Amino acid sequence: MKKVGVAILGLGVVGGGTYKILTEHREFYNKNHGVDISVEAVLELNRERAMALGIDESKIASNIAEICSNSEIDVVVESIGGIEPAKSFVLAVLNSGKSVVTSNKELYCKYSHELEKVAKKNDCGLYFEASCVGGVPVIRALLDNLQGNKITSLTGIINGTTNYILSKMSDCGASYTDVLKEAQKLGYAEADPTSDVEGYDAVYKLSILSSLSFHTKVPYTEIYREGITSVDPTDIQYGKQLGYALKLLAVGKNGENGIEVRVHPTFIKSNHPLANVNDSYNAVYITGDSVEDVMLYGRGAGALPTGSAIVGDIIYCATHQGSNYSTFKNTEKADPATKFIKNFESEYYLRLSVKDKTGVLSKITSHFSKHGISISQVIQEKAENGQVPLIILTHHTLENDVKKTVDELNASGVARVAAIIRVIS
Amino acid sequence: MKKVGVAILGLGVVGGGTYKILTEHREFYNKNHGVDISVEAVLELNRERAMALGIDESKIASNIAEICSNSEIDVVVESIGGIEPAKSFVLAVLNSGKSVVTSNKELYCKYSHELEKVAKKNDCGLYFEASCVGGVPVIRALLDNLQGNKITSLTGIINGTTNYILSKMSDCGASYTDVLKEAQKLGYAEADPTSDVEGYDAVYKLSILSSLSFHTKVPYTEIYREGITSVDPTDIQYGKQLGYALKLLAVGKNGENGIEVRVHPTFIKSNHPLANVNDSYNAVYITGDSVEDVMLYGRGAGALPTGSAIVGDIIYCATHQGSNYSTFKNTEKADPATKFIKNFESEYYLRLSVKDKTGVLSKITSHFSKHGISISQVIQEKAENGQVPLIILTHHTLENDVKKTVDELNASGVARVAAIIRVIS
Repeated sequence: MKKVGVAILGLGVVGGGTYKILTEHREFYNKNHGVDISVEAVLELNRERAMALGIDESKIASNIAEICSNSEIDVVVESIGGIEPAKSFVLAVLNSGKSVVTSNKELYCKYSHELEKVAKKNDCGLYFEASCVGGVPVIRALLDNLQGNKITSLTGIINGTTNYILSKMSDCGASYTDVLKEAQKLGYAEADPTSDVEGYDAVYKLSILSSLSFHTKVPYTEIYREGITSVDPTDIQYGKQLGYALKLLAVGKNGENGIEVRVHPTFIKSNHPLANVNDSYNAVYITGDSVEDVMLYGRGAGALPTGSAIVGDIIYCATHQGSNYSTFKNTEKADPATKFIKNFESEYYLRLSVKDKTGVLSKITSHFSKHGISISQVIQEKAENGQVPLIILTHHTLENDVKKTVDELNASGVARVAAIIRVIS
Repeated sequence: MKKVGVAILGLGVVGGGTYKILTEHREFYNKNHGVDISVEAVLELNRERAMALGIDESKIASNIAEICSNSEIDVVVESIGGIEPAKSFVLAVLNSGKSVVTSNKELYCKYSHELEKVAKKNDCGLYFEASCVGGVPVIRALLDNLQGNKITSLTGIINGTTNYILSKMSDCGASYTDVLKEAQKLGYAEADPTSDVEGYDAVYKLSILSSLSFHTKVPYTEIYREGITSVDPTDIQYGKQLGYALKLLAVGKNGENGIEVRVHPTFIKSNHPLANVNDSYNAVYITGDSVEDVMLYGRGAGALPTGSAIVGDIIYCATHQGSNYSTFKNTEKADPATKFIKNFESEYYLRLSVKDKTGVLSKITSHFSKHGISISQVIQEKAENGQVPLIILTHHTLENDVKKTVDELNASGVARVAAIIRVIS
């Protein structure tokens, strides 16, 4: 029986969940995987939290040096989150010759080049399945299943909080603010929800996933980001009528002209598999040149689903030789040859508030044709207080042309653009 | 650069697809995976088929011994299908010290115990991702991602032909026979479709997937099997009205009382993610005690999707040490301690043809209550030619009790049971 000593840094939701899984399944792993995994130490400032999990005081380390010098420990789980002290701890652990399993998307996204270098130097494993989309097995799918493909696109619902909020807004027509409050009460959103609702969390994950997919570093700074805080339930309802679901999508594309990476609210056709991913569920839809379309669906967060990914990495680390280092040149910046497309192409949904006057529609549409934008559908609603809500759907067009058109319309005095939402149909 | 020599046994749909992927991506794999994969030999009786792929005559082997003794070959792809000669060839290859990648579900299902033993003895890899659900990364998800979970259930649409046929029957109300003919024309069904439409193909895959999931051999002979040849479009339409989609589901459950494995047409609630898996797409829905629910979706068959899985295994084999042997005691029969539940529990849909007479409904329902079966819904349609179609939905009940009730009803003279379909709601 192979003995594997584990330390857990940080006993929050994910670290606590991991501890529970490891202790409750110890015999199961003995029997089925031939490994005896024991938690030898934890590092957690809040000692009460550790003791509430039933952890013996003697196993609560005082500092990272104690973990690094403990010869009983083979693998260290980093579930602290954020950059510091997580980064220094991970580097210290790797330098002490132990493997690391991390659930920290921000850390891995921003510093994987540095961490991987140190891991390789020390011949240690660096595992990060839990950093993206919780229990959904997407990292290993990219590394060990789809690696024979040229991946052309990756579209994901990769943040549970925003998907929960948008699903509820869609179900009951409630406002963003009201649903956010409810989500916070239920533990689906944090007290400070910025990282989720403004799309930062999704950006970190998209950076990791698209780097693996496209075999070049995709720095998170290259990713266009737009959160869900300005989403108006009115648009969700209009979208429904038009056969679309509104999702915060992370989109990565790799084409002849370069790489396109963006996170923003998106209307997606209601018969697309991603349109039916609701509540706090996540999914990643991957298209490769051989495999065609694959979708991986499941819980993107939570103590046990994320713990499942961490424990999977621990067992993998214990039963496989070698590590799953990234398969691209893991540098801080993208390869100089890589081109990022900022002026991307999409279909668009625009909601305008228009003055109820003769000839206005013709004036408005002339701004679109001026920029070569082809309109696919127009819906004019009943006037209210002299204002007419006007929905315009476009064919494929360039982002910059839409922006110019919107600026002109807002300056024209006849219409105000109340909402711009990109569309995948 | 690591050089990897490959041989392909059988250049049918899958073998041909694999050859194409390997040759077209050679430079891509050089660059991104540091491996130079070259196809050194093929074994294919139909030499024209090989030459049509552009394979040089000198690379067409005359027999398996030539492959085994060729020191340029490291990995052999078996895409012949069926038991013989595939089995003898795979054993010969393993005994010659080369690793095997197979897409052969029947072979792996029936003989994995024997093949794995020989692979281990020769310290060779035996990879079989392509044996189940084509390009969908389910084998490695079970082996390397979800291995920290006690998996409680696995429900899958794991045969593309039958899913295509049922989807089309549902879309247009056509008969099984008509849709089968169309599917054969389009290449979605084989000239002899028995293995697919009678559920054998799904049974082989379910045996492999449930063995990995439940950590004990689940011999295919233990799996209850019912194909789609008797499916009546009438029932698909009734199901739709009741909010169900009809799918050929492979169901594996592991509970306190034992393991339950079955393949049969099933009504599944239309909001379940599996209900929206249409046409030739496949999906596996897995529930584990930590990860909760995960669904893996994609192309379950076809030259390139299955080739993607094979090539993934080849690259994995070339870049990882060790193999992915099964994590259960891989014997011919199940562990003696394993109990298989044959009298399983389910909800049921029954369509009866009933004589249009007073008091008949009461008589019929009395047969259900006699066997303790609780009815959840009854729909009585308009009489036609003195016969009334009657739909009965039951609450959870035992298979054997339903069978007894059906036998009694058929013998009663007042009703004939025209359809029995298990339901997941």
